[in-house]
Amino acid sequence: MVPNKLLRLRVFNVCKKPSRGYRNKPDFTKNTYQVERGFYNYLQEPHLHYFQKILGDDERVLTNLSDLEKYNVDWYQQVRGSSAVVLKPKTTEEVTKIVEYCNANKLALCTQGGNTGCSAGAVPVFDEIILSTELMNEIIEIDENAGTILCQSGVILEALDRAVSEKGLMVPLDLGSKGSCNIGGNVSTNAGGLRLLRYGNMHGNILGLEVVKANGEVLDCLKLMRKDNSGLHIKNIFVGSEGTLGIITKVALQCVPRPKSQQVAFLGLQSYEKVLSTMRKARQELGEILSAIEVMDAISLEWGQQHNKLTLPIDKYPFYLLLETSGSNEEHDNNKLNSFLESALVQNHVLNGVVTGEPSKVQAIWAIRERLPEGFKNHGWLGLYDLSIPVTQFYNLVDETRAYLKNQVEYVFGFGHLGDGNIHLNVLGKKYNKRLAQDLETFLMKRVLELKGSMSAEHGLGFLKRKYLPMVNSPGSYQLMKELKRILDPNHILNPYKVFP
Amino acid sequence: MVPNKLLRLRVFNVCKKPSRGYRNKPDFTKNTYQVERGFYNYLQEPHLHYFQKILGDDERVLTNLSDLEKYNVDWYQQVRGSSAVVLKPKTTEEVTKIVEYCNANKLALCTQGGNTGCSAGAVPVFDEIILSTELMNEIIEIDENAGTILCQSGVILEALDRAVSEKGLMVPLDLGSKGSCNIGGNVSTNAGGLRLLRYGNMHGNILGLEVVKANGEVLDCLKLMRKDNSGLHIKNIFVGSEGTLGIITKVALQCVPRPKSQQVAFLGLQSYEKVLSTMRKARQELGEILSAIEVMDAISLEWGQQHNKLTLPIDKYPFYLLLETSGSNEEHDNNKLNSFLESALVQNHVLNGVVTGEPSKVQAIWAIRERLPEGFKNHGWLGLYDLSIPVTQFYNLVDETRAYLKNQVEYVFGFGHLGDGNIHLNVLGKKYNKRLAQDLETFLMKRVLELKGSMSAEHGLGFLKRKYLPMVNSPGSYQLMKELKRILDPNHILNPYKVFP
Repeated sequence: MVPNKLLRLRVFNVCKKPSRGYRNKPDFTKNTYQVERGFYNYLQEPHLHYFQKILGDDERVLTNLSDLEKYNVDWYQQVRGSSAVVLKPKTTEEVTKIVEYCNANKLALCTQGGNTGCSAGAVPVFDEIILSTELMNEIIEIDENAGTILCQSGVILEALDRAVSEKGLMVPLDLGSKGSCNIGGNVSTNAGGLRLLRYGNMHGNILGLEVVKANGEVLDCLKLMRKDNSGLHIKNIFVGSEGTLGIITKVALQCVPRPKSQQVAFLGLQSYEKVLSTMRKARQELGEILSAIEVMDAISLEWGQQHNKLTLPIDKYPFYLLLETSGSNEEHDNNKLNSFLESALVQNHVLNGVVTGEPSKVQAIWAIRERLPEGFKNHGWLGLYDLSIPVTQFYNLVDETRAYLKNQVEYVFGFGHLGDGNIHLNVLGKKYNKRLAQDLETFLMKRVLELKGSMSAEHGLGFLKRKYLPMVNSPGSYQLMKELKRILDPNHILNPYKVFP
Repeated sequence: MVPNKLLRLRVFNVCKKPSRGYRNKPDFTKNTYQVERGFYNYLQEPHLHYFQKILGDDERVLTNLSDLEKYNVDWYQQVRGSSAVVLKPKTTEEVTKIVEYCNANKLALCTQGGNTGCSAGAVPVFDEIILSTELMNEIIEIDENAGTILCQSGVILEALDRAVSEKGLMVPLDLGSKGSCNIGGNVSTNAGGLRLLRYGNMHGNILGLEVVKANGEVLDCLKLMRKDNSGLHIKNIFVGSEGTLGIITKVALQCVPRPKSQQVAFLGLQSYEKVLSTMRKARQELGEILSAIEVMDAISLEWGQQHNKLTLPIDKYPFYLLLETSGSNEEHDNNKLNSFLESALVQNHVLNGVVTGEPSKVQAIWAIRERLPEGFKNHGWLGLYDLSIPVTQFYNLVDETRAYLKNQVEYVFGFGHLGDGNIHLNVLGKKYNKRLAQDLETFLMKRVLELKGSMSAEHGLGFLKRKYLPMVNSPGSYQLMKELKRILDPNHILNPYKVFP
C-alpha cells in the first residue's frame, strides 16, 4: 500500500536527496549545498608532522581515507565533509596545543563527539580538521555524597550513567543515542531528551566546565558546586553553543537518585482538549513521579502501526497519551497511577487505558511511541519539523497546517513530547514539491514566531539550520551572539559554517 | 551569660561596624569604605525634568530625602548610598527611555528590586540614580497547560507563587525574603533558597528574559519554551549578573506541580560520617519526595536554643539533620518517611528522631533551623561565611578552621543546606580581631579554592564581596567577565562598584 521509495527525510527541507550513486553515502556537502569555503589554510605536511609530534603515534592522527569516512559523514547520512585528518587527543594539554597551532596557522577545526547530531553540526563541511573527543573518556571523580560527577568530555552518556548507577545515582539526561553520544556533545547542544520534563535541561544540571578557547587558552570554570554565585556565570555561555565558541574538555554534572520503579500508562482520548485536561490531571495527581508525557494523534499511530506491526494495547481513538512514572517505591507508584487512571476514566478525561509496571510490557508500550518515525520514512515526501510551541496551541498548529496545505499533501499529523511542548509536526506527500515545501516553511516560521516558539526545539541549528539564526532570534540577540563569537573565536576557526549563517 | 553587645555581623569581614551614632542606620558607604566615585555626571535639574516628563508625575520620581531613605539603605543595614532620586517606571518603554538618557548623559544607575540582598548589590554606593522595579508588577500570562508564567520583573516572589497556586502550580523557588524580593532580583542573583535541592537553580527554570541594555536597546530573549536550541543561549548571560549587564524587565519561568503534603523529620546523630550515610540513605529511599536536607552541629543548636528558647523534639546529640519531604500523596509520603526513620534507627545511622506532618509541628521544627542565626547575632564577634564546598569536606572544614584558630576564638561551628553543599561556617569570638579575621579569610579562601568551592554560594558578590571576583575565578573567566561588561555596558553606567572590583 505504501510505496517503498528511497528515503528522502527532510529536516526543515534543507536536507538534499541523497545521490542515487551513494545509497547511504551522501554526496560531498561542498557539492550539494551553496556554501563557500572560508579563507582558511589548507592542511600541509608540516601541519601533520606537528600533530604527529604532539599525539605521538599514527593511531591518534588518522589520515587514511577509509578511517576518515565515519568522521566525515553524519549519523543521519545527510552530509559529507572532506576532511583529510582526524586528531584524537587524550588530554586538555594536547587539545590546547592543537588549537593554539590551528589558530596561529588559520586552520579550521571541527570538534566531534559521538557524531549523533541531527543538524549536521559535528562533521566538517569542507576540509576542516576533525578533533575527535573519543579518547577523552576518563571518569575522573564520582562524589557519592554530593551526587556529582567530573569527567572528560568524550565519555559516552551511557557509560557515565552506568558508572553512577553503582552509587544509586542517575545522569539526569536520557537520549535515544545514549550508547554513542558524548557528554561534551550533550552540553554543546544543550541536549533535551526524554527526561527533561522531570530533571530539567543542561543549564540546570551542569555544575562546571573546562573549555579550550580558540587561542588555545584553557578556560577553567570547573566547579563542582550546586550553589555558586561568585561572578558572572561564564560556563553557561558554552551550553548549547555547538562547538562554535570553544572546545569543552571537562564536564562537572549533578546526578539524581536512581528511580527503583517504572510504570507506563497508554491512554485513548476523544479530543485534544481531553489530552490537555488529562495532562493537567496527571501533573496534579502523579506530581513528583511523572517522568514523561507523550502524545500521538490517530494518523501517527495508524501509519506507525502499518509498518511496525506492534500490537496496540487498546482500540483506536482520535488521540493517545503515553504517561511514564518512575519513583522510589513501586507499590506507591503503582497505586498512584492506577488511581489516576480509574478517576480519569470515571471523569471522562480518557476513554480507555492500560497501566503496566512489568518491564517487558513497559518496553513494548514505549516501542509504539519510539518506533513511530520508522512507519513514515519510506514514503514519497516526509517533511519533519522539530518545533517548540505552547502546549495549548500544539495541536491547533497541526490543524492549521492541514487547512493551509488542503489537498496538496496526503497527511499532516503530530506527535511528540507534550510535557515539554516539543511537537514533531509531520507532512506526508506522494512526491517532494519544492515550492510547497518552501511555502510551508514560511507558513510555519511565521506561526512559530507569533507563538514565541522555536524552530529547533532540541536538535540545535548545526549546519543544516544555520540560516535560521537571524530569523528566529531578535536582532539584539543575534548581534550579541556575533559579538560573543568575535571575542571567543576572532579567526572563526572553531566549527565554521555552523550555527552562524 | 552571653553579653548583649552591639551587633557586628561581618559578612566576609568586609562589613564595617555600624556607627554608634546611627544604630540601625549605617554611615554613608562613601565614608566607610575605600571606594572612589566613577567619572559620572552629577544629577542636575534638567535631568530631573526629563525623568518627570517620562514618568508623568512626582509619585514616580522621588526626590524627597525621607522617601529616599529606604532605597538608599540595604535590608541588612550594612551600607548607605546617597542617591538623590528614585525612578519608578511601569513599562519596558519607560525603562528604555531612562536608560538611554542616562547612558547618553553618563549618569550611573542602580537597579533595585525588593532590596533584600545580602551583599549590598542593589543599593547605590554614591549618588547613582535608583531605578526601582516595584511598579513593574504585572503578571502578564499564566499558561496552566504548559505550567509557565510570564511577568514583569518587579513582581514579588510570594505574589507570583500565590497567582500560580490557584492553578495547582508552584514557583520552583522559595526564599526567606519571598514577601519582599522581586522575581527580577531572583534572576539577577541566581537565587538559590530552600527548594534548590529539589527544583534546581534559576538557569534551569528561566525560559526567557526581556532585558534593557545599557544603551537603552530592548534585548528580546522572551521565549516561553522548555526546549529551545536555536542559537546561543543569550538569556543565561544575565542570570546571576547582579544588574551589571542589563536591566531585566520581563521574566518567563517554568512552574512545578504544587505538592499536597509536607513532612519533616528531625534526627540526632553521632558523627558527621553518620550524617553523610543518612543523607545517602534519604536520597535513595525518599528519592523524588525529598525537598530539603539541613544539618546543624551541637554548638549551633546549643547557641540557638539558649536564645530562641524553642523546645527540641529530641535530646542532645553531636549532629542534627532536618529532612523535609513534599509530594502528591500524604499517605505515601508519611509511609516513606516513617519507614526511612525506622530502618535508619535499626541500622544505627541515627540515634534518635521524630517525624511529623502536622503543619504546626512542621513549622515548629523548621523554626529550630531557621531561627538559628538569631542566637549568635548579639555576641561580640560573629564571622559568617556563606561557602559552597563538596559535602564530603563540609564538616572537615569546620574542624580544620577550629584547629587553625585554636583558642583565639570561643567557638567555630557549622550548619546549613547539606543537600546543596552550602555551608554556613561561623566563628564566634569575644571581640573583633582584625588581624585574626584577615588571617582566617586568607585561610578559608585557600581551602575553598583547593576544594574547588565557592566563597559566595547563594548571596552573590554585590558591593561587599566584589574584591573577590578575580580571586575566586580563573584568570580566563575573569577576563571574559570583563569583556562581557565592556560589550554590554561600555560606559559602566549599570550598577557600578558592584561585582567588578
